[in-house]
Amino acid sequence: MARTRLYRHGVLEAEGFPVAEVSDHLHDPEAVVWFDLLSPTPEKLAVVSEELGLHPLAIEDALHPHQRPKIDVYDSHLFLTVYAVRLTNGGLDLSELSLFVTKNALVTVRDSDSCDIDAIIARWDNTPRMAKHGVAFLLHGVLDYVVDGHFDVAEDLDDRVEQLEDQLFSDTPATGRAMQRQMFDIRRTTVRFRRIVLPMREVVTSLMHRDLEIIPSDMAPYYQDVYDHVLRVSEWTESLRELVGNVYETHLNLQGNRMNDIMKRVTSWAAIIAVPTAITGFYGQNIPYPGFGHAAGFWSSTALIAAISVALYVVFRKNEWL
Amino acid sequence: MARTRLYRHGVLEAEGFPVAEVSDHLHDPEAVVWFDLLSPTPEKLAVVSEELGLHPLAIEDALHPHQRPKIDVYDSHLFLTVYAVRLTNGGLDLSELSLFVTKNALVTVRDSDSCDIDAIIARWDNTPRMAKHGVAFLLHGVLDYVVDGHFDVAEDLDDRVEQLEDQLFSDTPATGRAMQRQMFDIRRTTVRFRRIVLPMREVVTSLMHRDLEIIPSDMAPYYQDVYDHVLRVSEWTESLRELVGNVYETHLNLQGNRMNDIMKRVTSWAAIIAVPTAITGFYGQNIPYPGFGHAAGFWSSTALIAAISVALYVVFRKNEWL
Amino acid sequence: MARTRLYRHGVLEAEGFPVAEVSDHLHDPEAVVWFDLLSPTPEKLAVVSEELGLHPLAIEDALHPHQRPKIDVYDSHLFLTVYAVRLTNGGLDLSELSLFVTKNALVTVRDSDSCDIDAIIARWDNTPRMAKHGVAFLLHGVLDYVVDGHFDVAEDLDDRVEQLEDQLFSDTPATGRAMQRQMFDIRRTTVRFRRIVLPMREVVTSLMHRDLEIIPSDMAPYYQDVYDHVLRVSEWTESLRELVGNVYETHLNLQGNRMNDIMKRVTSWAAIIAVPTAITGFYGQNIPYPGFGHAAGFWSSTALIAAISVALYVVFRKNEWL
Amino acid sequence: MARTRLYRHGVLEAEGFPVAEVSDHLHDPEAVVWFDLLSPTPEKLAVVSEELGLHPLAIEDALHPHQRPKIDVYDSHLFLTVYAVRLTNGGLDLSELSLFVTKNALVTVRDSDSCDIDAIIARWDNTPRMAKHGVAFLLHGVLDYVVDGHFDVAEDLDDRVEQLEDQLFSDTPATGRAMQRQMFDIRRTTVRFRRIVLPMREVVTSLMHRDLEIIPSDMAPYYQDVYDHVLRVSEWTESLRELVGNVYETHLNLQGNRMNDIMKRVTSWAAIIAVPTAITGFYGQNIPYPGFGHAAGFWSSTALIAAISVALYVVFRKNEWL
Amino acid sequence: MARTRLYRHGVLEAEGFPVAEVSDHLHDPEAVVWFDLLSPTPEKLAVVSEELGLHPLAIEDALHPHQRPKIDVYDSHLFLTVYAVRLTNGGLDLSELSLFVTKNALVTVRDSDSCDIDAIIARWDNTPRMAKHGVAFLLHGVLDYVVDGHFDVAEDLDDRVEQLEDQLFSDTPATGRAMQRQMFDIRRTTVRFRRIVLPMREVVTSLMHRDLEIIPSDMAPYYQDVYDHVLRVSEWTESLRELVGNVYETHLNLQGNRMNDIMKRVTSWAAIIAVPTAITGFYGQNIPYPGFGHAAGFWSSTALIAAISVALYVVFRKNEWL
Repeated sequence: MARTRLYRHGVLEAEGFPVAEVSDHLHDPEAVVWFDLLSPTPEKLAVVSEELGLHPLAIEDALHPHQRPKIDVYDSHLFLTVYAVRLTNGGLDLSELSLFVTKNALVTVRDSDSCDIDAIIARWDNTPRMAKHGVAFLLHGVLDYVVDGHFDVAEDLDDRVEQLEDQLFSDTPATGRAMQRQMFDIRRTTVRFRRIVLPMREVVTSLMHRDLEIIPSDMAPYYQDVYDHVLRVSEWTESLRELVGNVYETHLNLQGNRMNDIMKRVTSWAAIIAVPTAITGFYGQNIPYPGFGHAAGFWSSTALIAAISVALYVVFRKNEWL
Repeated sequence: MARTRLYRHGVLEAEGFPVAEVSDHLHDPEAVVWFDLLSPTPEKLAVVSEELGLHPLAIEDALHPHQRPKIDVYDSHLFLTVYAVRLTNGGLDLSELSLFVTKNALVTVRDSDSCDIDAIIARWDNTPRMAKHGVAFLLHGVLDYVVDGHFDVAEDLDDRVEQLEDQLFSDTPATGRAMQRQMFDIRRTTVRFRRIVLPMREVVTSLMHRDLEIIPSDMAPYYQDVYDHVLRVSEWTESLRELVGNVYETHLNLQGNRMNDIMKRVTSWAAIIAVPTAITGFYGQNIPYPGFGHAAGFWSSTALIAAISVALYVVFRKNEWL
Repeated sequence: MARTRLYRHGVLEAEGFPVAEVSDHLHDPEAVVWFDLLSPTPEKLAVVSEELGLHPLAIEDALHPHQRPKIDVYDSHLFLTVYAVRLTNGGLDLSELSLFVTKNALVTVRDSDSCDIDAIIARWDNTPRMAKHGVAFLLHGVLDYVVDGHFDVAEDLDDRVEQLEDQLFSDTPATGRAMQRQMFDIRRTTVRFRRIVLPMREVVTSLMHRDLEIIPSDMAPYYQDVYDHVLRVSEWTESLRELVGNVYETHLNLQGNRMNDIMKRVTSWAAIIAVPTAITGFYGQNIPYPGFGHAAGFWSSTALIAAISVALYVVFRKNEWL
Repeated sequence: MARTRLYRHGVLEAEGFPVAEVSDHLHDPEAVVWFDLLSPTPEKLAVVSEELGLHPLAIEDALHPHQRPKIDVYDSHLFLTVYAVRLTNGGLDLSELSLFVTKNALVTVRDSDSCDIDAIIARWDNTPRMAKHGVAFLLHGVLDYVVDGHFDVAEDLDDRVEQLEDQLFSDTPATGRAMQRQMFDIRRTTVRFRRIVLPMREVVTSLMHRDLEIIPSDMAPYYQDVYDHVLRVSEWTESLRELVGNVYETHLNLQGNRMNDIMKRVTSWAAIIAVPTAITGFYGQNIPYPGFGHAAGFWSSTALIAAISVALYVVFRKNEWL
Repeated sequence: MARTRLYRHGVLEAEGFPVAEVSDHLHDPEAVVWFDLLSPTPEKLAVVSEELGLHPLAIEDALHPHQRPKIDVYDSHLFLTVYAVRLTNGGLDLSELSLFVTKNALVTVRDSDSCDIDAIIARWDNTPRMAKHGVAFLLHGVLDYVVDGHFDVAEDLDDRVEQLEDQLFSDTPATGRAMQRQMFDIRRTTVRFRRIVLPMREVVTSLMHRDLEIIPSDMAPYYQDVYDHVLRVSEWTESLRELVGNVYETHLNLQGNRMNDIMKRVTSWAAIIAVPTAITGFYGQNIPYPGFGHAAGFWSSTALIAAISVALYVVFRKNEWL
């Protein structure tokens, strides 16, 4: 089934009709049309462009991956690039979504199927009372979906940082290497994520502040709400950076502690072993020291070894070296 | 007793009447009504919303936890989300407080009982002369309470940092691990706290700068005062970050010092033990060295051991290694 | 003697009269009055407040310590909080100074005697030609004194940093612990100092930019001059932070160097001792090695020990390990 | 062939004619002329300057290397300095490009042949439909080429960082020194690159926002597109800095790990060797210990050595020290 | 020869006449006068001040060292403080230059002879065609000289950083201490330099943006050019900070590498020596081990020592420990 929809006076009139029929409705000022193109060929886009009067630069941007959210305002239409994001084990999974917005049409262009268009449709169907706002309503649904996705990623990253925090002071810590890998991945993902998140502020404020006739005042609170979400994600991302930094430095420090502890203990044992060796060395000399060749020598040697070893052990223990 | 109040001409007329009676007063332009809802059901909120003409988005925000202070300006009312904070042993204890502000009504919606509504009521009762300002007076009481709570948290955090600072150079320092845990917790709490504190600046300035008819000029200094507190908390939080950083780095460094000191001492003792071992090794050889099998050997060996050990001890002592 | 002054037409008419007489002059538009209150009781302040028509919020702020410079503009008067600072061995010594500024009166409220009011009076007496500007002249004297105090503190901190810098590369460095204590204290003081200094920019610009009738245009360059000092202190404080950071990191690094040096030397000596031990071990075996029980054995053992020890010493020396 | 072009009414009329003929067309308001000067002598530039009425300061700037992108607006012309960049093994390869822009002429001045003028010409030839915008079209081609070059460098640097990231956790890591060299070079290049990239934002916004009659509204989206690229490069460069920092710190940490691991293992083996030495020391004493001179002594000694060594090995193994 | 000049209609009429004659020309609106005062006494300045109508605050600023560039705009004149800087071995050599700028006079006040006034005169003489702009021309010459000096310092610092960078990976690195001294000095100088450089932006923009009648539009590009230099120096200084940071961290890391390498090698040799010691200990026991007192014992002992030592050597070599 084709990804198309036709609204008239806030009511969904048709759905799933072929894209070819779209042009029938485009010139009807009372109709609002949406259709979706999945990885369209340049030729396909050229046809669409001609019918909707799109700017060649916008078409070019829709064909080439861009990697930064943006909004371009042309005389007859808007062009937006936004990114749906998911957090996978390997890192961020970006899916570019290009949007052409005219007075009565919204075209979504996706570069892959990983951006879930059904979720967007479900959002539209959940708020039918706003459908009367036409294109502004459709656009809001898309942005709301995208920004909620960003929010989920921020939440996921926060959870991962919290897991790291829990591991940090747990009694059975993960190996240094595994933990470092996790910290490294979270930081790297956060850096790449910020490049997607921060420009969204500009995209949404541009939509709201410019004298675009597309967003009616009744929709304004809804766009404000999206903006609020964008701000929260931005601030969250910033604080994630600090939280990971905190984990990182504490981890370094704790590892140092642990190693120093081991070293202290090892050194203490080395001292406890070195002393008997020194004593037996003395009694191994080929010179007539007191007790040389007599049982008295054996007893004094053994007594010295035992006494000093135990004394050292007690002292080290008391000073918390062992 | 229901959490409700009715003011008329700056005088508290009724208190504790059932929420159901609120609607009787709402359409009286001379009455100012406050009521509080604790974890209301969506149905309950829907009723309130209808009577006061609240925006569905604001209702939705009041139902779902949000985790960032904000202010939304709707045509007929304001919606604020603020956070009462307390510092517990485990970290920050947030309690969300949603506020609907209309011309003559203030609705507070709490998600838990941990935000102390009695303290807010006490604040109102302490400044009865301002009650004539109606809703602006009520709202000020709430914000003042919330921001004072932020201030207390900043003060508590500062105290904790000061305790850390005192431990740092004390002669009986806490163990590294315990201190690191404390530093880690303070930093983490500070990061989360900043996410609550910084957006408050925007919330209060929005209230003050926008052409809202709700705040009369006589109340302006009081809101300015709240804003001043918000600023102090913000700046305090920033400097807390630096102070903890200072503690952190100095701690790292001192710990390194202490460990190096131990290592130096251990190495010195190792040297003092190694030398006798080498000498007894010499006298333990099965070859006719001078003194082999004679008392002279014993005396020279013992003299050497004693002399070199004492010499090393003195040298190390002088160089402050022992 | 009471801290009071009465100016008329730029001339100091009376001084040291009791505060009780102040009210006689307050309603004389040609008189300019100053008086000082040291830790006044709330009752005392209430009397003053009534006579001058001060805002209750300002009175409250004057009674409670605040810890952040600020300016509040009320309809009939200004309220300022500024801080006189001194650098003591223990850190910053703050003394809060609250100022009420009306058309023809300046009231200074001090919380302790450590803010030197005589120095302010001396400033006034040094620039009698400006006395004709009345309250603006008096206020300038106070701010000038306070900001000069900030300047002195910045200079003192700079001197302390320079002392640290000199110690850093001196041949007889202070012990690590003492130096760390100093660095720690300077950093901590700098953080707290910045909280006093930075808001001063806002206080002075507010005075200059707002349409306050209190500062006549002839006084403008003098306030500009104060502002310039505030800026210098701010920038100085920022660069202090960097300079201490530089000292801190270099210190860490040098200490590491020194410790590594010691370790290298120790390890070398350990090697030089280990080799003879191994050789004597060989000659201590109860097996007929070449030279067993013969003088030849003794000579070869001694020769080996001497040769290898000297060789190692020379090699280590050449590689700068010893 | 001379680097010259003549456009009339959006059509390329002539190409490759001698620079000497340029002046013939300069006063024809319908002609748009471009010519290129490669390392011109001051005399040569003086001639051009006179014909086009260029400002002496601009001429001076074109003659001396500058090392920072800028735009100067003179009454009759614009002067721009931009930098074509390439990433070589040794670092950044900058090539300065000075641009004089008058109503109907564009002069490009290059300091070396490494800025590829043919690529710019190719760009012009690819978009002939825009040639009717005259100088704005020519200038756009140059800027587009330059900014795309910046983009390529950012991409290359990103690739290099990714290679480092891959090496980081690979099983056969590069030697510390080689990797540090790479990190050092990337960081250094990034710092120098930012000095070229960041001022470009100002250059392009100046072109777009100032009331310059040179850029017609039809060209605006194209300049907006260039600006968008500039922003992407700037943000990319910023995030590169963070990514390298992440690699750097993780590398430090991993190296520390590896070294600590080695130390732990070494210490364990040292302990395993020290114990037999202590035991044989005991049995080497010249005193009648149990088993002295008997086979029983041999067996007990050997059994002790074997038992303790194996026990230590097992314990260390279990604690993951070996 | 006195440092004085008189211009009329853009032509240098007189030079080197005594300062006393200056007042003759001051009231001639067609004359432009410059004179220089080297460390003037307060009395001397008082005379000048009276003749030119200078503000007492400006006079005071000219007499006391200030250490921050600034511009003060008085009704009848401007007052500037700028700093000529040179880089010496000991650090920055500042020389304060105070400037009084009236409609037709420029007074330069120097606190020492190290600011080279001849270089400024040479600049004036090199651009005689601009002399018709009077005071604006003179002031430009001074600022241009000062800012060029800043530029030279930035360049020198950059060179020093580059020398450090080269030493970093050279095969014969400077000793850690010497290199740290250099890094420390560069950082410290950079911090102090920034305090001179950054406020210059404000000084020059103030000159350009304020409605001062002193700078005619023809001179605007020249001041813009100075501003451009100021910006370049500022950005350069910022990037210097990062470059030194890069050197610093890499140096730390490399030194750690080198030390770890040494430790690894030392530990390996220690192990190679410890094993023979253990074996000879075994053969030194006074118990009838196999080969006790026989040649077979000698051969087996020697074989074991040789075999294990060689084996260890080979293994360590293969693992790149030796």
